[in-house]
Amino acid sequence: MTEPAYVAVDWGTSSFRLWLLDAEDNVLAERRSGEGMTTAAKTGFAPVLDSHLAAIQAPASLPVIICGMAGARQGWVEAGYVDVPARLSAVLGGAVAVDAEGRDIRILPGIAQRSMDAPDVMRGEETQLLGAIGTGASGERLVCMPGTHSKWVTVSGDRVTGFASFMTGEVFDVLSKQSILSHAVAGADSFDGTHPAFRAAVEMAARRPQMFTNLIFTCRSGQLLHGLDATAASARLSGILIGTEIAGGLSLSGEGAKVHLVASGRLKGLYEAALEAAGFTFETIDADDAVRAGLSMAAQSLFFSDARTSA
Amino acid sequence: MTEPAYVAVDWGTSSFRLWLLDAEDNVLAERRSGEGMTTAAKTGFAPVLDSHLAAIQAPASLPVIICGMAGARQGWVEAGYVDVPARLSAVLGGAVAVDAEGRDIRILPGIAQRSMDAPDVMRGEETQLLGAIGTGASGERLVCMPGTHSKWVTVSGDRVTGFASFMTGEVFDVLSKQSILSHAVAGADSFDGTHPAFRAAVEMAARRPQMFTNLIFTCRSGQLLHGLDATAASARLSGILIGTEIAGGLSLSGEGAKVHLVASGRLKGLYEAALEAAGFTFETIDADDAVRAGLSMAAQSLFFSDARTSA
Repeated sequence: MTEPAYVAVDWGTSSFRLWLLDAEDNVLAERRSGEGMTTAAKTGFAPVLDSHLAAIQAPASLPVIICGMAGARQGWVEAGYVDVPARLSAVLGGAVAVDAEGRDIRILPGIAQRSMDAPDVMRGEETQLLGAIGTGASGERLVCMPGTHSKWVTVSGDRVTGFASFMTGEVFDVLSKQSILSHAVAGADSFDGTHPAFRAAVEMAARRPQMFTNLIFTCRSGQLLHGLDATAASARLSGILIGTEIAGGLSLSGEGAKVHLVASGRLKGLYEAALEAAGFTFETIDADDAVRAGLSMAAQSLFFSDARTSA
Repeated sequence: MTEPAYVAVDWGTSSFRLWLLDAEDNVLAERRSGEGMTTAAKTGFAPVLDSHLAAIQAPASLPVIICGMAGARQGWVEAGYVDVPARLSAVLGGAVAVDAEGRDIRILPGIAQRSMDAPDVMRGEETQLLGAIGTGASGERLVCMPGTHSKWVTVSGDRVTGFASFMTGEVFDVLSKQSILSHAVAGADSFDGTHPAFRAAVEMAARRPQMFTNLIFTCRSGQLLHGLDATAASARLSGILIGTEIAGGLSLSGEGAKVHLVASGRLKGLYEAALEAAGFTFETIDADDAVRAGLSMAAQSLFFSDARTSA
């Protein structure tokens, strides 16, 4: 059995994921829970981490690298932001140490865009980007990272030149539960990217994004006038939101930029179908792989680079 | 003192307005309350109307003309829809009678657009349109009617050729209260169309509506990075929603259509400022005057046309 070398943590707003890894980045153990920042801010961050470390019997000397909301102002220890334009390697230099007895724990910073017109922040996605793109890349890229607040990022070589957050996931959730559209989507089953109502809505919204607040209303009026069923209404709402996001995201970049989708799970399928429906070619990178690769690069740089040099 | 000739009622989802009028449409008495369809569906429509008629001592013989949600399926008596393309005068022919002992009560129908791509419905706005435009109009018009679900209507002569509902007011409300943006707008004061954050947001959203779900996020990131205050964040959110609506609404019509704004109260000021900020010329028609004029035309046609012919 290989020796554990470090622990990597992706600490989001509502989710906690931890991996125990060896020196070759093989996963020796994994933990997932709902103890994201929102929960941990109440119970304390150290106890959450300690309980998971104890569960995998991590030695006390094992260092821990963390990305995500644990570094927010309302998180564990504020890790600040690197400002755009930002080399991805600058994220490594901005890591802050947590004052923990004995154990070396570091939290990676986010990236901020401080323009007055388009202020924006990310936390966690910078580590996915690092893992997906690396520190020695060249060429122009446009990277789509779907989620509660999806990010579209323009990358030139290994520099993040700009980005935009789209509230796609949260707006879907709020409209489905709190608006008049809740009547139309009540009882909807899960759907995937092959649902015709999803694809039609993506195509329509990507073509006419200025109709956003009208298109969403058609989930309700379609139910009233055409008997649109709940699952189709939900697929339609999702398609309108993702199609509008795609129109906005693609407008951030000039022609010729390569489009990368960094996603996993259900969102991966939905966004792949949506980008296809909107007529775009792209490459998919698994988001789970990307964040672990980014955390691994950070661990190598922060914990093991001296050892390597002296080896 | 002039004799009362009829009673006119605008019965919305959440509001009830009643006027006692003489034969020359002079207002002899007015009642306003929150007993809209939502309330009246529980307490009963007849008791609500009766209590207001009693309060103004309306004679039992006085006829009542009603528009709005009282004619919805979940309303008092379903008044159906006239389908587009629809002459505004067709609304008069679609009125249904309420089975009330002795009193002549009629409810006007709504207008429906049954296309599969853009299903839509209105109730109440058709009566405002009738009052604002009349039955003998000519030329092309684009009519903006702001509200919880704003309507943009294309009118050719005296025919409604198409329309679209935008969920502007409801989305503002839901995002302000239920999303992450609630942190940014908490404690906001009221603002009007002169607020610089409102005007800047309208201009930005009208120019780049595809960025809608990103622009709304800047209400939050602007607070995090630039200390945007709550009132400015709220004005910005409102401007983004109205600017996006304007971009969508104006796309419904060809060049050269005259833009009419049918609005009153605070929304009138906001939309006048927004249309100006987006660079459009328009004429304003007071929405309260318009609905009363429409109800008056209906009353003349339904209750008094025989009397006139025989006079």
